[in-house]
Amino acid sequence: MLNIGVIGYGYWGPNLVRNFSESGVAQVTAVSDMNPERLQLVKKRYPATRTTIDHRDLLTSNHIQAVAIATPVHTHFTLAMEALKAGKHVFLEKPLTETTDQARQLIDEADKRGLILMVDHTFIFTGAVRKMRQLVESGEIGDIYYYDSVRVNLGLFQPDINVIWDLAVHDLAIMNYVFDQKPVAVSATGMSHVPGKPADIAYLSLFFENNMMGHVHINWLSPVKLRRSMIAGSRKMVVYDDLEPSEKIKIYDKGITITERQALYDHLVGYRVGDMVAPQLENHEALNLEARYFADCIGKGEQPANNGQAGLEVVEILEAATRSMQEKGCTIELNAGS
Amino acid sequence: MLNIGVIGYGYWGPNLVRNFSESGVAQVTAVSDMNPERLQLVKKRYPATRTTIDHRDLLTSNHIQAVAIATPVHTHFTLAMEALKAGKHVFLEKPLTETTDQARQLIDEADKRGLILMVDHTFIFTGAVRKMRQLVESGEIGDIYYYDSVRVNLGLFQPDINVIWDLAVHDLAIMNYVFDQKPVAVSATGMSHVPGKPADIAYLSLFFENNMMGHVHINWLSPVKLRRSMIAGSRKMVVYDDLEPSEKIKIYDKGITITERQALYDHLVGYRVGDMVAPQLENHEALNLEARYFADCIGKGEQPANNGQAGLEVVEILEAATRSMQEKGCTIELNAGS
Amino acid sequence: MLNIGVIGYGYWGPNLVRNFSESGVAQVTAVSDMNPERLQLVKKRYPATRTTIDHRDLLTSNHIQAVAIATPVHTHFTLAMEALKAGKHVFLEKPLTETTDQARQLIDEADKRGLILMVDHTFIFTGAVRKMRQLVESGEIGDIYYYDSVRVNLGLFQPDINVIWDLAVHDLAIMNYVFDQKPVAVSATGMSHVPGKPADIAYLSLFFENNMMGHVHINWLSPVKLRRSMIAGSRKMVVYDDLEPSEKIKIYDKGITITERQALYDHLVGYRVGDMVAPQLENHEALNLEARYFADCIGKGEQPANNGQAGLEVVEILEAATRSMQEKGCTIELNAGS
Amino acid sequence: MLNIGVIGYGYWGPNLVRNFSESGVAQVTAVSDMNPERLQLVKKRYPATRTTIDHRDLLTSNHIQAVAIATPVHTHFTLAMEALKAGKHVFLEKPLTETTDQARQLIDEADKRGLILMVDHTFIFTGAVRKMRQLVESGEIGDIYYYDSVRVNLGLFQPDINVIWDLAVHDLAIMNYVFDQKPVAVSATGMSHVPGKPADIAYLSLFFENNMMGHVHINWLSPVKLRRSMIAGSRKMVVYDDLEPSEKIKIYDKGITITERQALYDHLVGYRVGDMVAPQLENHEALNLEARYFADCIGKGEQPANNGQAGLEVVEILEAATRSMQEKGCTIELNAGS
Repeated sequence: MLNIGVIGYGYWGPNLVRNFSESGVAQVTAVSDMNPERLQLVKKRYPATRTTIDHRDLLTSNHIQAVAIATPVHTHFTLAMEALKAGKHVFLEKPLTETTDQARQLIDEADKRGLILMVDHTFIFTGAVRKMRQLVESGEIGDIYYYDSVRVNLGLFQPDINVIWDLAVHDLAIMNYVFDQKPVAVSATGMSHVPGKPADIAYLSLFFENNMMGHVHINWLSPVKLRRSMIAGSRKMVVYDDLEPSEKIKIYDKGITITERQALYDHLVGYRVGDMVAPQLENHEALNLEARYFADCIGKGEQPANNGQAGLEVVEILEAATRSMQEKGCTIELNAGS
Repeated sequence: MLNIGVIGYGYWGPNLVRNFSESGVAQVTAVSDMNPERLQLVKKRYPATRTTIDHRDLLTSNHIQAVAIATPVHTHFTLAMEALKAGKHVFLEKPLTETTDQARQLIDEADKRGLILMVDHTFIFTGAVRKMRQLVESGEIGDIYYYDSVRVNLGLFQPDINVIWDLAVHDLAIMNYVFDQKPVAVSATGMSHVPGKPADIAYLSLFFENNMMGHVHINWLSPVKLRRSMIAGSRKMVVYDDLEPSEKIKIYDKGITITERQALYDHLVGYRVGDMVAPQLENHEALNLEARYFADCIGKGEQPANNGQAGLEVVEILEAATRSMQEKGCTIELNAGS
Repeated sequence: MLNIGVIGYGYWGPNLVRNFSESGVAQVTAVSDMNPERLQLVKKRYPATRTTIDHRDLLTSNHIQAVAIATPVHTHFTLAMEALKAGKHVFLEKPLTETTDQARQLIDEADKRGLILMVDHTFIFTGAVRKMRQLVESGEIGDIYYYDSVRVNLGLFQPDINVIWDLAVHDLAIMNYVFDQKPVAVSATGMSHVPGKPADIAYLSLFFENNMMGHVHINWLSPVKLRRSMIAGSRKMVVYDDLEPSEKIKIYDKGITITERQALYDHLVGYRVGDMVAPQLENHEALNLEARYFADCIGKGEQPANNGQAGLEVVEILEAATRSMQEKGCTIELNAGS
Repeated sequence: MLNIGVIGYGYWGPNLVRNFSESGVAQVTAVSDMNPERLQLVKKRYPATRTTIDHRDLLTSNHIQAVAIATPVHTHFTLAMEALKAGKHVFLEKPLTETTDQARQLIDEADKRGLILMVDHTFIFTGAVRKMRQLVESGEIGDIYYYDSVRVNLGLFQPDINVIWDLAVHDLAIMNYVFDQKPVAVSATGMSHVPGKPADIAYLSLFFENNMMGHVHINWLSPVKLRRSMIAGSRKMVVYDDLEPSEKIKIYDKGITITERQALYDHLVGYRVGDMVAPQLENHEALNLEARYFADCIGKGEQPANNGQAGLEVVEILEAATRSMQEKGCTIELNAGS
């Protein structure tokens, strides 16, 4: 049984506490938050859990082997570094850090100490995203043409990060998990509509090798809520609509067929239309699975798929996209997290 | 009664012939097409209409006052110029021409001769788009934040123009009609997935003054067909779904409220949520209305909203977008058709 | 090449003329309608077709081997009987006749003369309905639990028949084609909301043997248009939504599993949930296929699936349902068209 | 602050405990359940709440002024009667009782003792249903033509009540609340597909005076989950889709217009099509509102809208519908709960 402490009991912290508590492999020994009212809430729901306004109480406790950190992104680096130096495994909210430099330091520190550093890319633990990875890996989709995602709704404006860091992070984590290839360049556009606030609408284009493309539309100013991604390949096409109560994944036996003609350099395009299948998906709470995976990786001393490196690769794109957006779409090369 | 000749009886020509015939204000005197089989089809459907494989027969006819041209885009300039020089009013398929330079020459020629030059921006004659313009003009939507459009489906690949020229042209024509402001710069990304063919997927970002943005996603490789645009403003938000059998336009009384705080440069963002209204729209065939409008403009000697200048403004963006796409998103300044 | 005459060029007649003309196996030699204006329309569209206000001109013509009748239902019997007596094969609009007695007389007359009598049950020629029949026949759906259909919209009120005869006829024809079993009893409820007019909303319950049930909701007073049927069986369940542009048929690998327990008469119910498949359907115009089928049956001297007997079976249910509705749902036994 | 005891902590009981606890006007003093495991769950979540396997402990407690009963329907009468006789106000799960006779006895007992008897018709506390009542009451919908509801899904089969008692009870409670008129007769059809089990699919037709009709389709064997009701009136039409995340209520300015013609008894039907409005609805948890309403009625000594009489009126229809179903749709007269 893993003893874990949770730092931060704001918007997401309660989900972490609940899921680690119900994971069956961990118990939440203590929770810290700077706001005493939030701690009272913990006490009411979990009378046996220790609470404190000082997160260092968790780091100095011998009982606690790991901490989960759910605080604003500008505090991630400092808190996680403290925790690693105190010998704790770290489960850190996404995005991992504010900069790639910070991310690299955390990775190094964890490596040096043989500790697990895991970033909370929750979506990769959903049945839908796991199915997409399986479809890509098995070759069922064929060569990938593009990943296109729309993630828009009204609000919530974040005070200090732009809409890319708030919403696109999900799609970047999904792409990081589903595809082997890493993007080599990014172009982004976007805009703020509230004076002095970060961009509330943005568009990211990602360039991969082998004629693959990614695109993410994120938006805090949409009248309707949409969560829809498409993957098109040479053999199949997939639509993932996360707001569908069932049938979140639809696999279309549709596409183009390319025939080379006698004449050099000329190709004929044909169309293929077949059945659509909505496969039955694993039905579990993603965060519960992720909590158990974290405990499992610690137990076995294995690197998780969503380790610091995965977090770094996402942060690198977020950084580059923000810079491209400031330069009105100018392409920024990526180093694929190296 | 306007006597009109139609050049080109391929994909779109039959719609022109039918709608001009049924307009009540024009009659299709002659149709030309280089393919005799297409002309037989005309004969079968309209026994009284003259047919010819040589479009010049239409231009030399004294009975014919105007021609409608529905041929591939690379023939637009030459055919339209011939027609204008023969003293005919011209109704020209979109996009107007292959280049802005060609567009300017046609505009000059028409001006010089006092002839009407109209580009077939069909969508601006739909009840839905006219309603959007009215909502914007009346101030009901408030300051415009963005126009975002998704226009995707499987195929049809065009042999010689990319997906921007094929599909984005509709959104550019709609924006040209609905908004007063003109874009000042464009950034585009996109890709081809068939060797030697033009781009089949693309994303256009348009920058306007006053914090307004436009974005168009066009795609020939989508498993599902989508035709959805959103306009968000400071007072209302609109969703236009052209595939909805009824309720194509939905107006949301939703948005953000911005409160200036005491402290300089700081703003509070609030949310406003109210009713949604799907207004009853004018119900007519867009092309029929457009045919009557063409005859009307000729009769009154008035410039149409979709005149050569509107066509030029759209072509300028298409040109710049294609260039930006080749440069992976690099921003291209626009001169707003001047 | 079958020479056919069409009687009635009102709402549906133009579809018959067009589809027989384009069938490739028949030509429409003559059209009759009591309204000269309708005949002018024929002349304009089909200059080579003879027109007449007297349908008897068609019956006395030696060139004409068959007639298609698309007139109000109260004229069906008289016109069809005249045609049969004149030795013509008959293609008759649905519902076949106003009464079962009339239907039986037509069947007898056709039989006696060796002529084809076919009722226009258009839906059974759609790819969707044919797929449903195939799923039922092959046993893929298992034992049938029920067929449930909703067919509602605003208007059009018919002057002399109630909503059952106008809309339920489609579902009865579909059930007649898809299922082997025939209903043994019917219960119907419904109501008129316009003084002096026939019922505008109705509900039909059909009882079959072997625990199978049918239900049809038809309604001229619905704010939304719905065309959705469900078939549930012991192995699969099917949803048929005719308003879906694609994916009209969805097959659900869902259902219950019944386990007999030790204790006599006791059963445990479990649930089975699996993939959903939307099969690619044949894509053709139903009426075109039906026109070719009619010519084919005449050529081969074979009874069509939608022959007089099928029409009679549907009329028997319409008759009984109307009577049950007048008696507020009281069950009426059926003789399955015998 | 009302002290309440909850009897039954199975499927629905936890919702009652949570909502009464969070109501701000009541506290759950004690919970009883015959299953000790369920009580341990209570202890874990609410350490301060007393638990007992004997519901009589609640009835003899002087601290407890009211009980909420969430047990199987066959225990409702006995438990509620005991509670009333012990001087407790009673909040009773729907359906109120197994028979109208039982319902009348409970009503009498509550009246005699001046106690509040309330049946848990949760839906009438939703923003959507309250909006429908307001639309009907204000005359905005005009004369009511019908209420039509579809409430279907796969499972859960109830062991001892049929699908009418399980699902139609919701629609009957909604109709009871939304409309002034009471139904005067009912016809029902339905069927069981599991040997020895109650009906799993059923259709209810309700007859009102003034040409108003009701219909409810309830079904445990549907591959898709549907929760959709329509109300059509002479002035407006309403669609209520409870599965819509937002826009649950849509009001259509659609309908027919009836014009009397000169000739006696003859009417012309026209169609009216206008805007659709989806009004912003009150957004609260229905059960929370209901809990506060219960406490409020007790405090003021006022009869709730969903009192024993409302529960009786619903049970009368359930009883009659079950009987009609056994008689294959034969109409049963209702006494409107008198």
